[in-house]
Amino acid sequence: MPDRSIITLTTDFGPSSPYVAAMKGVILSINPAVQLVDISHAIPPQRVLQGAQVLAETTPLFPAESIHVAVVDPGVGTSRAIIYAEIGRRRYVCPDNGLLSRLAERESPSRIIRVTSERFFRHPVAPTFHGRDIMAPVAAHLSLGLDPSEMGPSQPQIKQLDWPGASRVANSIEGQIVAIDSFGNLVTNITREMLAGVPTDESVAIHCDGHETQGIFAAYGEQPSMTLVAVIGSNDQLELAIVNDSAKLMLGVDVGQPVQVRW
Amino acid sequence: MPDRSIITLTTDFGPSSPYVAAMKGVILSINPAVQLVDISHAIPPQRVLQGAQVLAETTPLFPAESIHVAVVDPGVGTSRAIIYAEIGRRRYVCPDNGLLSRLAERESPSRIIRVTSERFFRHPVAPTFHGRDIMAPVAAHLSLGLDPSEMGPSQPQIKQLDWPGASRVANSIEGQIVAIDSFGNLVTNITREMLAGVPTDESVAIHCDGHETQGIFAAYGEQPSMTLVAVIGSNDQLELAIVNDSAKLMLGVDVGQPVQVRW
Amino acid sequence: MPDRSIITLTTDFGPSSPYVAAMKGVILSINPAVQLVDISHAIPPQRVLQGAQVLAETTPLFPAESIHVAVVDPGVGTSRAIIYAEIGRRRYVCPDNGLLSRLAERESPSRIIRVTSERFFRHPVAPTFHGRDIMAPVAAHLSLGLDPSEMGPSQPQIKQLDWPGASRVANSIEGQIVAIDSFGNLVTNITREMLAGVPTDESVAIHCDGHETQGIFAAYGEQPSMTLVAVIGSNDQLELAIVNDSAKLMLGVDVGQPVQVRW
Repeated sequence: MPDRSIITLTTDFGPSSPYVAAMKGVILSINPAVQLVDISHAIPPQRVLQGAQVLAETTPLFPAESIHVAVVDPGVGTSRAIIYAEIGRRRYVCPDNGLLSRLAERESPSRIIRVTSERFFRHPVAPTFHGRDIMAPVAAHLSLGLDPSEMGPSQPQIKQLDWPGASRVANSIEGQIVAIDSFGNLVTNITREMLAGVPTDESVAIHCDGHETQGIFAAYGEQPSMTLVAVIGSNDQLELAIVNDSAKLMLGVDVGQPVQVRW
Repeated sequence: MPDRSIITLTTDFGPSSPYVAAMKGVILSINPAVQLVDISHAIPPQRVLQGAQVLAETTPLFPAESIHVAVVDPGVGTSRAIIYAEIGRRRYVCPDNGLLSRLAERESPSRIIRVTSERFFRHPVAPTFHGRDIMAPVAAHLSLGLDPSEMGPSQPQIKQLDWPGASRVANSIEGQIVAIDSFGNLVTNITREMLAGVPTDESVAIHCDGHETQGIFAAYGEQPSMTLVAVIGSNDQLELAIVNDSAKLMLGVDVGQPVQVRW
Repeated sequence: MPDRSIITLTTDFGPSSPYVAAMKGVILSINPAVQLVDISHAIPPQRVLQGAQVLAETTPLFPAESIHVAVVDPGVGTSRAIIYAEIGRRRYVCPDNGLLSRLAERESPSRIIRVTSERFFRHPVAPTFHGRDIMAPVAAHLSLGLDPSEMGPSQPQIKQLDWPGASRVANSIEGQIVAIDSFGNLVTNITREMLAGVPTDESVAIHCDGHETQGIFAAYGEQPSMTLVAVIGSNDQLELAIVNDSAKLMLGVDVGQPVQVRW
């Protein structure tokens, strides 16, 4: 146990939401020494897959033993479980609704506990806000050294959501846009691995909604301003970008739009 | 005094505003060991009542002795006072403009000090930014153990703002929407207490701008997607929600819209 | 070195961006005891000058020895340098693209190091995310006491960007709007110094896009609601504001709009 545990928060509550502050108040009331870090509160409401993607991109960068609380929870108040899971040495508290899907694709959880022991909850538990009344206090108790086996029974596996797949056949790859960042860059589900052996010079063309660009570059700044470029981004996924502008606005596309790579 | 004091910040400066960072810099320059927590910086500009509501929802969840600084301050630079107040064991620094109204409805302040002692201010004091030059340094000195009586004279009461009331007559309650959260849920001023004895089955109907829903549910997820439902939310106030969508957008309503409950 | 170093972050990644969280994870993995403070992540994408303005407004308020990391980096992955600079006793890590221009106008850097020593980087370095892979780990190592001379060679000067100037001739000053805050107040590049000797009563008129107001006031609240007023703001720059409303929306103007002061 480090001197000062870290608890991160990922939600769809919106930036600067008082709901996030409520969770922080509950956590700090149990463990005032904890270090709180916001990962993102701008997950689109109830988009579990986008939450799963953000957790996979960011939480492996944090110190081992950090506790990651994620609340994207369309089923709050229904029978979906709340789980504690260990993946590698990382620790997660979240609804069992697929939020850990992307992480678990790479490494299976080594331990999964269904969180049922009400003595670690805040009471009364509001049926509409398990983030504040269950997940926050449970994470705070864990940060103080609570043995996870006290929280409930083991369960064998987590819920897995299907991730929109990309497919490679002969000389082409079919994928789609899975995220758009604040620069308007279009992040696809076509990974660096899938692009192994694919040329990066002008003999490769990337197509999206009638637009085309040739070549795959290492950085945005290698091409003139306002040019559409394809880049392998910092998460090892193919991205489409307009140099010094927003590809989202210029192309008028959104998550789900098909993208083809041909060579 | 805990080892590491907590200071929270609530403002209408907008998420990610440099004005918030300016306040944090001033606080940390006086007490580098303080734990800073953002409650919300998305209070609509100069909407004191919404600030009062957020303070009442969130600050009671924080550890006793935390210092809560709130800057929603349309009167900055005029003669309105800045106060230090204790409500329960919680401590507040804010303009005396009604920001503590909702908290004081439930529990009267046990101590109120008018903050006048300029030796705890940052100089020169900008007439347009008392958050940075008065409230931030005063809170930082308090976190180091400053006796509040050093800051100025006692005053007998705080400014109270009227809260839009809901009223119950015979078999109906008339209230209104007082807040909208990031999911588009419509939060009313009709409390769990006012609903005591009201049926929750289909014999109760909730009306809002020509729309109607029957029954009061415990959680959003109990009804089919895209259904309008009424729920008692996590702050014990009646809410109208569209399951898996935004009631604000679907109904096209805003804060102030009347809501009726009839049975 | 204080017990608990402070690292601040200023980026154009957008509020609640997972990219910011990625940088925080990298920093905390190297120094889990660091105190992280967000200055702003709402710098408009790739607007280096606005980043420079925010750094100049906020970072001098933080404790000396704080480490300020700034990532507004349109040239990421190209040959622009990454630098460590000391200005006064403040410490900065950022691309050498003008981000320190506003600070350096007031006080020249006392030390500039070109950051080249790859052993302090995260590997592999993504060409599109030097914030995560170079600036974050370098700042974290500095917070642990790394001697800056280990990071690379000295360089004599930083890149300076021209700031849009205001000019005073006879009985008038010509300037422009350089920032708009969350209240819709229009912040100009006309400073308190330039206004030395200019009357503040009704004999001075401020013009902007066909609108006119007379007198320069000390606070927004001195005039009736909905009035256009000129105020010297908290950063010692002339601002135009609509009392209790948004000057940006009411006047329909944006950054770059000329402003004249005549007397």
